[in-house]
Amino acid sequence: MSVTSFTVFSIAYHHVNLNLNNVDTSKTLYIITPTHNGYGQIPHLTRLGITLRQVRNIHWLVVEDAPTTNPNIEALLRRSNVKYTYLHAETDRKSTMQGRGVEQRNCALDYISKLNPVDGLVYFADDDNTYDLELFKVLRRTKYCGVLPVGLLGQMPYESFEIMDGKVVGFYAAFGLDRKFQIDMAGFVVHVSALTKNNPPRFKRTPLMGVLETDFLEQVVTNMSQLEPIAYDFDRILVWHTKTQNIALLSLEQYKSNYGSNRDMTRFPVLIY
Amino acid sequence: MSVTSFTVFSIAYHHVNLNLNNVDTSKTLYIITPTHNGYGQIPHLTRLGITLRQVRNIHWLVVEDAPTTNPNIEALLRRSNVKYTYLHAETDRKSTMQGRGVEQRNCALDYISKLNPVDGLVYFADDDNTYDLELFKVLRRTKYCGVLPVGLLGQMPYESFEIMDGKVVGFYAAFGLDRKFQIDMAGFVVHVSALTKNNPPRFKRTPLMGVLETDFLEQVVTNMSQLEPIAYDFDRILVWHTKTQNIALLSLEQYKSNYGSNRDMTRFPVLIY
Repeated sequence: MSVTSFTVFSIAYHHVNLNLNNVDTSKTLYIITPTHNGYGQIPHLTRLGITLRQVRNIHWLVVEDAPTTNPNIEALLRRSNVKYTYLHAETDRKSTMQGRGVEQRNCALDYISKLNPVDGLVYFADDDNTYDLELFKVLRRTKYCGVLPVGLLGQMPYESFEIMDGKVVGFYAAFGLDRKFQIDMAGFVVHVSALTKNNPPRFKRTPLMGVLETDFLEQVVTNMSQLEPIAYDFDRILVWHTKTQNIALLSLEQYKSNYGSNRDMTRFPVLIY
Repeated sequence: MSVTSFTVFSIAYHHVNLNLNNVDTSKTLYIITPTHNGYGQIPHLTRLGITLRQVRNIHWLVVEDAPTTNPNIEALLRRSNVKYTYLHAETDRKSTMQGRGVEQRNCALDYISKLNPVDGLVYFADDDNTYDLELFKVLRRTKYCGVLPVGLLGQMPYESFEIMDGKVVGFYAAFGLDRKFQIDMAGFVVHVSALTKNNPPRFKRTPLMGVLETDFLEQVVTNMSQLEPIAYDFDRILVWHTKTQNIALLSLEQYKSNYGSNRDMTRFPVLIY
């Protein structure tokens, strides 16, 4: 399927000239990133750190899915030059219920709640997405619950909203058209005051897949007119799902058998990858 | 296959304290990036731009595989705040020979040759790879032809070198163990003086796959002892192949048929993705 089949949504046109220079950066942006040990972890966190180090007044909460933190990741975060907190929360692997990143995101929400900030915004930034630097300015337009389009979702070039008179009146989603809020994890941002309610919102494991976000948002707002379309004046996507291809890494034994190498493998450098 | 099966190469250990602060940045780094219209192009170039804008004294040569440049990409590059030149060179689609990015990389090499710089380094940076910021300091250690390990190649956690007495004496490669120089496109950097020879090196289409790099390098150096292992003192990877998963985007008709939407699609915003 060529991308040109979607040209109705991607015609070339003028670029809106946006004035984001006077966006107030006094609010801290709490960026929550669940992560787990795997071949993509180090490149993903490296490049997310390279993006975040250019953003003013952020606090990066990285939550490892493990019983302890990982010293290699700690070293990476230290090098990143970003203000970070490195936490860990293990996934409940006994649960038969759905919900990736539930324990990790809730761990970070608990952490922020304890900080008890009077102002600030919470955004969930998975480590494999790609973020435009202007995204972080746009997030700061949020008063209570901002929403914005997300690129490359499912088989869609992007998910977006139907907007009338400055209000969200419908969703343009890749799946789950029966969800109350058809919004991806990267498509919303919440003010910290939502976390200081009596019954603060948390992610929950459910029998269904794909309802993590709507379930969370239903604890924050009651109807779609409360969603603030913060990127309404943008003619381009500011965040994309760029999932890295899975690689089935070879074991040393498989490598030797595939490539017939009888060289002394101990002479190769031992590297963190 | 779990990544832990390769633990012989990934044990935890100390992080070498490197002093890269006094690396000479007076040499221009020419970064050559072939690119083509596709769903990943905008996120890939956005995040590569976010990395490159933090590197001193670079010149980014982006070469579009098309008969003309694309105004949306031109706008992206302008926003990137990187010194760039946006070129175009169309792939010879009639050729039955192998060689991705041949015409685009050669177009950039021609451009640099015409600039006729006395000093500087050329590095081939594909748009979907992930780059550590320290990579660009390490590249600048090169005198004539530097080489360094590359992460996530084929089914390997990384490709690397066997080094003895500071010289490359062997390759640790994911495939093609009969290649003279078993090095990936992201694993070498060449001084511009190589481009001002009488018969300057260029990429060539060949009947075989996977020989683009060795064929180019054989025009630059004659034996592996001339390769400078510039990242010899690093205990971690500085560049990774992070290929984005293919997405078969739906056409508008397919979307309507899959999701039974009879909404007025013209009311959704038209975005560049």
